[in-house]
Amino acid sequence: MSDISPALSAFEYWVSMAGTIAFASTAVLAVAAKGIDVFGAVIMGIITAVGGGTIRDVILDVPVFWGSDLGYIWFAMAASFVTYYAQSFVSSRYVYSLMLYLDAAAVAMFAILAASKVLDAGFGGAAGPVLLGIVTAIGGGLTRDVLAGNETLLMKKELYAVPVTIGTVLFVAALPYYPEGELVLSIVCVLLIFFIRAAAIHWGLRVPRWMVVTK
Amino acid sequence: MSDISPALSAFEYWVSMAGTIAFASTAVLAVAAKGIDVFGAVIMGIITAVGGGTIRDVILDVPVFWGSDLGYIWFAMAASFVTYYAQSFVSSRYVYSLMLYLDAAAVAMFAILAASKVLDAGFGGAAGPVLLGIVTAIGGGLTRDVLAGNETLLMKKELYAVPVTIGTVLFVAALPYYPEGELVLSIVCVLLIFFIRAAAIHWGLRVPRWMVVTK
Amino acid sequence: MSDISPALSAFEYWVSMAGTIAFASTAVLAVAAKGIDVFGAVIMGIITAVGGGTIRDVILDVPVFWGSDLGYIWFAMAASFVTYYAQSFVSSRYVYSLMLYLDAAAVAMFAILAASKVLDAGFGGAAGPVLLGIVTAIGGGLTRDVLAGNETLLMKKELYAVPVTIGTVLFVAALPYYPEGELVLSIVCVLLIFFIRAAAIHWGLRVPRWMVVTK
Repeated sequence: MSDISPALSAFEYWVSMAGTIAFASTAVLAVAAKGIDVFGAVIMGIITAVGGGTIRDVILDVPVFWGSDLGYIWFAMAASFVTYYAQSFVSSRYVYSLMLYLDAAAVAMFAILAASKVLDAGFGGAAGPVLLGIVTAIGGGLTRDVLAGNETLLMKKELYAVPVTIGTVLFVAALPYYPEGELVLSIVCVLLIFFIRAAAIHWGLRVPRWMVVTK
Repeated sequence: MSDISPALSAFEYWVSMAGTIAFASTAVLAVAAKGIDVFGAVIMGIITAVGGGTIRDVILDVPVFWGSDLGYIWFAMAASFVTYYAQSFVSSRYVYSLMLYLDAAAVAMFAILAASKVLDAGFGGAAGPVLLGIVTAIGGGLTRDVLAGNETLLMKKELYAVPVTIGTVLFVAALPYYPEGELVLSIVCVLLIFFIRAAAIHWGLRVPRWMVVTK
Repeated sequence: MSDISPALSAFEYWVSMAGTIAFASTAVLAVAAKGIDVFGAVIMGIITAVGGGTIRDVILDVPVFWGSDLGYIWFAMAASFVTYYAQSFVSSRYVYSLMLYLDAAAVAMFAILAASKVLDAGFGGAAGPVLLGIVTAIGGGLTRDVLAGNETLLMKKELYAVPVTIGTVLFVAALPYYPEGELVLSIVCVLLIFFIRAAAIHWGLRVPRWMVVTK
C-alpha cells in the first residue's frame, strides 16, 4: 500500500497513532491491578504497542518500523504514563469502552497493514501474510501477558484473534482477484475485523461451541 | 549438508514433514487439557513446530526457513486441526506413543540439521552450532509452554534436552576429524539422540541424580 | 566507543566477562531453588548472560555479538556449572553479595555500551538507545524468569530497571553536548547506575511511593 495517496497515508498514520495509544493504555490497565510501578507500566505499554510489529519485522528481516519513526514510542510512552496515573479515570466505564473499541480498530488496521507489508515482501506465499498479520496484531499483547504472569489470550476463548484471522485470510485470498482494488479491499477487511471484534466486545461473545473441544 | 544427494534430500524433506506433524500434534495435546479453542490450538501447534527454527534463523540472520517452504506451515496447521478434533483418538495409547517417538526422531534430526546449518554459516565457532541446535530442537516447545502457562521442560528433569546436547556436541566435535563423512556422522548423531530419547520415553528415565542438586 | 584505546578495550572486555559471570551465577541461584537439573541451570545461565544483547542485536539487525566472541558463552557456561554445584558456597552471604554487586556493575556497563552501540547504528533517534539499553540490561533476566515460571522483575518494584533508565537517559541526553567526551560521559553514567543500584542492594530500597499507584 505504498502507492496510496498522501492524504490517506496521513489518515493511516494518525489512526496508527490512535491505535498505539489504545494498545498502550489497555495494556497498562491490564497489568496495573497487579501492583506494578509506573516504570514497569510504561515498559509494558511500549512492549504491547510495538511488540507485535517488531517480531514481524525481525522475521521478515526488514528494518524494525519504530527505528525510523519514533512517534510510536513517544505516543505509547505518553499514553502509558497518563493511563497509569489516571487509572480511575481511564478505567471508568465510558473511557475504557472507548479504549476497547480503539484497540479493536487498531488490531484490525495493524493486521491488514502487516499482511500487505508481508505480501509486498513476498514472504511465505499466502500463509506468511496471514500468520504475520496475526503475530503483528496479538504479539505485543502476548508478550505483555507473559511478562506480567497473566493468562495469554490464546488460552481465553475470547473472540480476539479469530476476527483478525478471518479478515486477514479474506484480504490475502481476494487480493489476487482485485490487484487494482487493494485500497478498497483493505478497508473492507479492516471494517470486517473491527465489526466482528466490536460485536464481541458489545455482546460479550466467546468463540462458538464447536471451536472448543473438552474431553 | 547442502551437497547431499537429491534422493537423500527428498528423504530428509519428508522426515522433516513427519517431524513437523509430530511437533504440532503433541503440542496440541499438551495445551488441549487447559480448555483452549481450536484457533488457539492451531496457533500453538504452528508455533511449536516452527518456533525453534525461526529463532535460530533470526539469530543467524538468514532468511527464516518457512518463508520459502510453506510445507512446514501447512503440515503443522493440518496436524494441529486434526489432532484438536481427534483428541481422544490421538491421545489413545498407541497413537500417542507413535507421536512421542516421531517427536523424538524430529528433535534428533532438527538438532543435527540445525548444527550443520550453523556450522556452514560459520556462526559461533563450536559453541554456536551446539547452542542453536538445542534452541532449534526445544525453542518451539518452550515458547508453547510459556504461552500456555505450563511449566517449561527446562524445569522438568525430563531427559529431553540432554540427549539433544550429547548428540550435537558429538557432531560438532567429531566433524573436523571426518570432514568427508558428514553424512554418516550426522546419521550416527541423529540415531544417538533418538535412541537415548526413545529409551527415556520407554523406561520413563529422568535426568540422573548427580545432575540434580537440591539444597 | 570503537575508537577508545586498546588498553581500555581490554579493561572493558574483562569487565564484560566478569559481568557475564555475575549474570550467569545469579541466574543459576535464582532458578536452583525450584529443583532444576544442571543442564537446565546452564541453559538458564547462558540465556540470562547473553539474552538481552541478543535481542538488541536482532532488533538492530547487526551480527549477534556472541557469534564472533565465544568468550561470553564459555564464561557463562563455566560460571553456571560451578555455581550449580557450589550453591551453598555461592549463596553464602559474602559471595552472594559480591555477585549482586558484580551484577550491578555488569548491568550498568552493558546498558551504556548498548546505548553507545545503538547510537552509532543511528537506530531510533534518542529513544532507541535508551530502550535497547534497557532491553540489553534486563532482557536476559526477563527471559530467564519467564522460562522458570518466576515473577519477572517488571512486576517486583525492585530498583533494578529504574537506575538503568536514569543512567541511559543521561548518557543519550548529554552526549550531543560533549561529543568529544563520550568516554568520560560513559564512565560517569556507568558509575551513576552502579551506585544507585548498589544503594538499592545495600539498603534494600524499593521504588518510591509516588511511582506506585494502587487502586
